[in-house]
Amino acid sequence: MNLSGIIGYPVTPFSPDNKQLDLNKLGSVIDVLLEAEVDAIAALGSAGEAAYLSEEEWKQVAEYTVKHVAGRVPVIIGIAELTTEQAVKYAQHAHHIGANAIMLSPFSYYKLSETEIFQHYETVSEASPLPIMVYNNPATCGVDMTPEFMLKMVNNIKNASMIKESTGDIQRMHKIYTLSDGKVPFFNGCNHMALEALHAGASGWCTAAPCLIGDKPKQLFDAVKSGDNKKAKALFYQQYEFLEFIVSSGLAAAVKSGLSLQGKEAGNPRKPLLPLNKPAQQRLKSMLDNLG
Amino acid sequence: MNLSGIIGYPVTPFSPDNKQLDLNKLGSVIDVLLEAEVDAIAALGSAGEAAYLSEEEWKQVAEYTVKHVAGRVPVIIGIAELTTEQAVKYAQHAHHIGANAIMLSPFSYYKLSETEIFQHYETVSEASPLPIMVYNNPATCGVDMTPEFMLKMVNNIKNASMIKESTGDIQRMHKIYTLSDGKVPFFNGCNHMALEALHAGASGWCTAAPCLIGDKPKQLFDAVKSGDNKKAKALFYQQYEFLEFIVSSGLAAAVKSGLSLQGKEAGNPRKPLLPLNKPAQQRLKSMLDNLG
Amino acid sequence: MNLSGIIGYPVTPFSPDNKQLDLNKLGSVIDVLLEAEVDAIAALGSAGEAAYLSEEEWKQVAEYTVKHVAGRVPVIIGIAELTTEQAVKYAQHAHHIGANAIMLSPFSYYKLSETEIFQHYETVSEASPLPIMVYNNPATCGVDMTPEFMLKMVNNIKNASMIKESTGDIQRMHKIYTLSDGKVPFFNGCNHMALEALHAGASGWCTAAPCLIGDKPKQLFDAVKSGDNKKAKALFYQQYEFLEFIVSSGLAAAVKSGLSLQGKEAGNPRKPLLPLNKPAQQRLKSMLDNLG
Amino acid sequence: MNLSGIIGYPVTPFSPDNKQLDLNKLGSVIDVLLEAEVDAIAALGSAGEAAYLSEEEWKQVAEYTVKHVAGRVPVIIGIAELTTEQAVKYAQHAHHIGANAIMLSPFSYYKLSETEIFQHYETVSEASPLPIMVYNNPATCGVDMTPEFMLKMVNNIKNASMIKESTGDIQRMHKIYTLSDGKVPFFNGCNHMALEALHAGASGWCTAAPCLIGDKPKQLFDAVKSGDNKKAKALFYQQYEFLEFIVSSGLAAAVKSGLSLQGKEAGNPRKPLLPLNKPAQQRLKSMLDNLG
Repeated sequence: MNLSGIIGYPVTPFSPDNKQLDLNKLGSVIDVLLEAEVDAIAALGSAGEAAYLSEEEWKQVAEYTVKHVAGRVPVIIGIAELTTEQAVKYAQHAHHIGANAIMLSPFSYYKLSETEIFQHYETVSEASPLPIMVYNNPATCGVDMTPEFMLKMVNNIKNASMIKESTGDIQRMHKIYTLSDGKVPFFNGCNHMALEALHAGASGWCTAAPCLIGDKPKQLFDAVKSGDNKKAKALFYQQYEFLEFIVSSGLAAAVKSGLSLQGKEAGNPRKPLLPLNKPAQQRLKSMLDNLG
Repeated sequence: MNLSGIIGYPVTPFSPDNKQLDLNKLGSVIDVLLEAEVDAIAALGSAGEAAYLSEEEWKQVAEYTVKHVAGRVPVIIGIAELTTEQAVKYAQHAHHIGANAIMLSPFSYYKLSETEIFQHYETVSEASPLPIMVYNNPATCGVDMTPEFMLKMVNNIKNASMIKESTGDIQRMHKIYTLSDGKVPFFNGCNHMALEALHAGASGWCTAAPCLIGDKPKQLFDAVKSGDNKKAKALFYQQYEFLEFIVSSGLAAAVKSGLSLQGKEAGNPRKPLLPLNKPAQQRLKSMLDNLG
Repeated sequence: MNLSGIIGYPVTPFSPDNKQLDLNKLGSVIDVLLEAEVDAIAALGSAGEAAYLSEEEWKQVAEYTVKHVAGRVPVIIGIAELTTEQAVKYAQHAHHIGANAIMLSPFSYYKLSETEIFQHYETVSEASPLPIMVYNNPATCGVDMTPEFMLKMVNNIKNASMIKESTGDIQRMHKIYTLSDGKVPFFNGCNHMALEALHAGASGWCTAAPCLIGDKPKQLFDAVKSGDNKKAKALFYQQYEFLEFIVSSGLAAAVKSGLSLQGKEAGNPRKPLLPLNKPAQQRLKSMLDNLG
Repeated sequence: MNLSGIIGYPVTPFSPDNKQLDLNKLGSVIDVLLEAEVDAIAALGSAGEAAYLSEEEWKQVAEYTVKHVAGRVPVIIGIAELTTEQAVKYAQHAHHIGANAIMLSPFSYYKLSETEIFQHYETVSEASPLPIMVYNNPATCGVDMTPEFMLKMVNNIKNASMIKESTGDIQRMHKIYTLSDGKVPFFNGCNHMALEALHAGASGWCTAAPCLIGDKPKQLFDAVKSGDNKKAKALFYQQYEFLEFIVSSGLAAAVKSGLSLQGKEAGNPRKPLLPLNKPAQQRLKSMLDNLG
C-alpha cells in the first residue's frame, strides 16, 4: 500500500439522545470526505470518538465504513486501547472486515515503558497481517514516543511500516526524515502545522478538516507538491485559524458543530464531552462562511 | 463519614494467564492491609488496575472488597471512566453493594474543560448518594484540576466533600488549605511527599505501600500527629527510596512484584503493563529487606 | 562555620532617582533584619538586586554590609556572574573585606554544561578560602543543577560545603538528604515551601521576609524544631499568602514597596523592574496589617 | 530599511588567553560572511558572546564592525542588557557609530512583566532613532514574549518595526503572520527550523552558519523563494544535522571550534563557556567535510 495525500477522518454520528450510533449519517459524512477528494479514509480516530464507544459500536463503525467506502479509497482503522488483548481483538476484526491498514497508538493509564510499547505493537503485528501506521499523539494517548523509538519499531516489527506524528513539533519530522534517509513514510497529524509538515517531507496529512471545508486541504497539498509556494502559503493561512480552532476546541465537538451549522446534523459528542458553546459556534460559523 | 489516617490500596490479583481475577488472593491482600492498621480500604484505584478490567470484573472486585472488609473499616471505590454514563453506572453499583464512598476522577482522551468536568461530577453526584472524594491525578488521568476548581466542586456539588491530590506539588495542598480555611479535608496521593503533606494539613495518606511494608506508613502518620518530628523524619527517610520506587516503577507492577518476593504471589499486571524486570526486582528486594 | 536558622536578605536601597546607592538606608534594613533575630545576613542575593549593580556599587554594598553587621552574625555574600573571571574577582573581594561565606550560583546566557559549571565553582574555590554555599535557582539564573550534581561539587570542590535549593520542588531536598545521609547541610530558598523544607531536614531558611514581618519566620523555625506542629502549621499558613506574594511579585519590588508602606522608604527597584502597582500595594498593605 | 534574506552573525574572536579582543580576526570572520553572500551583518548577538564582554569591548566590537562592513550590507547591533539604562547607552552608541538597526531583547534576572518589557523598549526607542528588531529568545534571555505582545510593541512603539523569533515554535510565526495580515516582517532565529520558517513567511533567517558553511543558507533561501521545493528540501536536510548541532552545542563554542578546524582560529569562548570537547570537534569536522 502506497499511501499519500489527504487522509480524511469522519466523526461518528449519534442519535439525538447520544445512546445509539447513526450509521446512515456516518455514510453521509464519509460521502462528504470522498467528495472532498481525500486519498484515504481513517475511521475510529480521535475525531471518531473511538475512545467513547462500546466494543459492539466500535465494530459496527469499522464494518460500516469499509462497506460504505467499498474500495474507492483505502480504509484505515484506528486502534487505541488500554490493553493489548483488546488491541489484538480489534486488529483482527479490522483484517476480518477487509480494512487496508490500522493506525495503532498506545493509550495509557499507567505510563508505559518503551519495552511495554514495543511488545504491544509486536503482539498486534503478529495477530493481524495489516500494515501498521505507528501513531504518536501524547496529548490524547498519554504516551510520547520519540522518532528514534518509532523508527526502531518500523525497522523491527513486521507490519509496522508508516508513522503518524501529532505532537506539533516539526523537529520530530526532521528526525524521522534524517534518521531514515527519507525512506520511512510519515504523516502529519497536527492540522495547523500542515504547510510545514508537507515541506518537511510528510507523505500526507491526516485530517478531519475536509468534513467541513471540502477540498481546501487537498488544494494545499497539491500546491506544495507543484512548487507554487505563494499559493500554498495563501491557502494555508486562509485555513489556519479554522485548523487551529478545531484542534483546540476538540475535533469531535468542533466538527459535529460545524456539520450542524451546515445542515448535516451528526449529533453531539458523548459526555463528558460537550458540544461547542454558543460563542464558539458563532466563531466557527464565521470561519466557515469566510472559507465557503 | 470522617475519614483520616492511612487509606490502603489493594492490587487486583489475576490468574497466572492474566485472564481471570483471583478473588481469594484479593482477600489475602486486603487482609495484609488490615493487619497494617489502615484506616480505610480503597478498591479499584490506580494500584488496582481498574483501567484494565472489564465491566464484569470491575463489579466483582468492588463487591468482593465490600464483603471481605465487612465493615471493619470504610470502603472507598475508585471510579475513573472515559464516559459519564459508565461513571454513573459504577457509582450506582458502589452504592448498591454497600460501599461507603467513591473516589472519582475524570479520565480523558480529549482534554476536558472545567465545564465538562463539573457536569461529570454533578451527574454522578445526582445518581448516587455516596460521598465523593474529588481525585486529581493528571499523570494517569490526563486532566489537571486546580485547587480552586476542585473547591468549587466541593462547594457546589452535593456529595463532593473531600479531595485527593496526587500531583506531587505541595503548593496545591497549601492552596486547598488556605482557600478553604482548613475546612475541606484533603488526602495525599503522592507517596514520596507524605511527610510534607501531613505537616501541611492532609487528613490522610492514600497508599498501596502497606501491601508491602506493613504499618510503617501508619507509624509515620502517628509520629507527625504526636509532634515527634525527629521520629517522623527518620521514618519517612527510611521509607523514602521505597516510596519513590513504587511510584516511578508503576504501582501495580511494583506491588505485585513485591508480594511475589514476599511469597504472596498475586499475578502480573495486565499487558501492555509488564512485571518489574530482574534488576528492578533485585532493587526492590533489597529495599524490602532493609525495611523488614 | 555552622550555619542554621533564618538567613536574612536585605534589599539594596537606592536614591530617589535610582542612580545612587543609599548606604544609610541599607544600614537601616540590616538593622530591621537583626531585630528580627536572623541568624545570618546574606547580602547581594536576588532581593538585593545584585544583577542590576555596577561593579563599584556591588563592592560598596558588600563592604558596607560586613562593616555594619560587625560580627554580630555571619555575613554571606551572593555571587551570580556571567563570567568566571568576574565571579573570581568578587569572591576575592568578599574574602578581602571579611565576609564569612559566599553563596555562589551560575548565571547563564548560553546554557551551561555540568563540566562548565563544575569548573566555574572549582576556579572560584581555588581563588578564595571562603566556604561556598552552592545555590540553585533556575528561575533567575537560567541553569538547573540536580541534587546529584550539587553533591558531586560539595564532595569534590574544597570549599563547597552547603547547598541552597530554590526550585520549590521538595523532592530535591529529599534527594539531597538521602544521597548525603543527611550530612550535607541544605537551606531552603523557596519562601512558600518553608514549612516542608524544615520538616524535610533543611538547616535553615533563606528569606527576605523578615525585612517586613519581623521574627515570624524565626518563630516558625523554632516551632518546627520544638515539635509544636500545630503552632508551626498555624504560623506557616498565617504567613503563607504573604510569602507566596513576595515571590510571585518579585522580591525586590515587593520588599521595597512593603518597606515604603511601613515608613522605611528604600527607593524603587532598577528599571526595567518596576515598583508594585497600586492594587498590588493595597494587597500587600492588607497582608502586612493582618500579620502586624 | 527593507531587510530580507540571510542575516549573518559573526563570533567575537579573542586573544589566546581569552582576555583581549582580536579585532583583526573579527574582520576576517566578517569577510567570511560577506563572501557567503549574507544580506546583512548582525554584531553582538548570541554568537558574538555579547553577554560576556565588558562595556568597552562591546563598544569596540560594534564600532569595528560598522567600519569594516563599510556600507556593503546593513549592520544590525544586538542589545540584551539587564538594565534599561545600559540598553539605552548601547542604543545611542549604535546610532552614533552609524549602525543601521538594533536587535533588542530583554535579558532577565527577575522575570519581567509585559509592562516592564514594554517600557524597556519604549525607553530605548525614545533614546535612539534606529529601527528596532524585537527579538524573542527565552532560552538565553529568560523572558518569553508572545506574538500578540510583540506585535503590540511593533504597533505602539515608534521604532519597533520587525520581529526575530527564536523559540523554535513554528506556531509563533503563524500567529505573527496571521495577526498582522502578513505585514510585519519577521525573521527566523532557530537554525534547524529555517525551511519551515521561510515557507511560513519569514523575511529572512538570522544565522551564524555562514561563518562555517558559506552560501548554503543563501542557496536554501533562494530555492524556497523560487519554488524549487525539491532542491530546498534537499539543501535543508543536507545542512540539518549541522544546524541542529551548532544550536545544541552553543553557537559561540561550535562556530569557534569550526573556524579553528578550517584554519581560521578565532580563540575560545569565555569561561565558564568551554570549547567543544574532542568527540564533538570530530563530529563537527565530519559534518563540515560532508558539507564542503
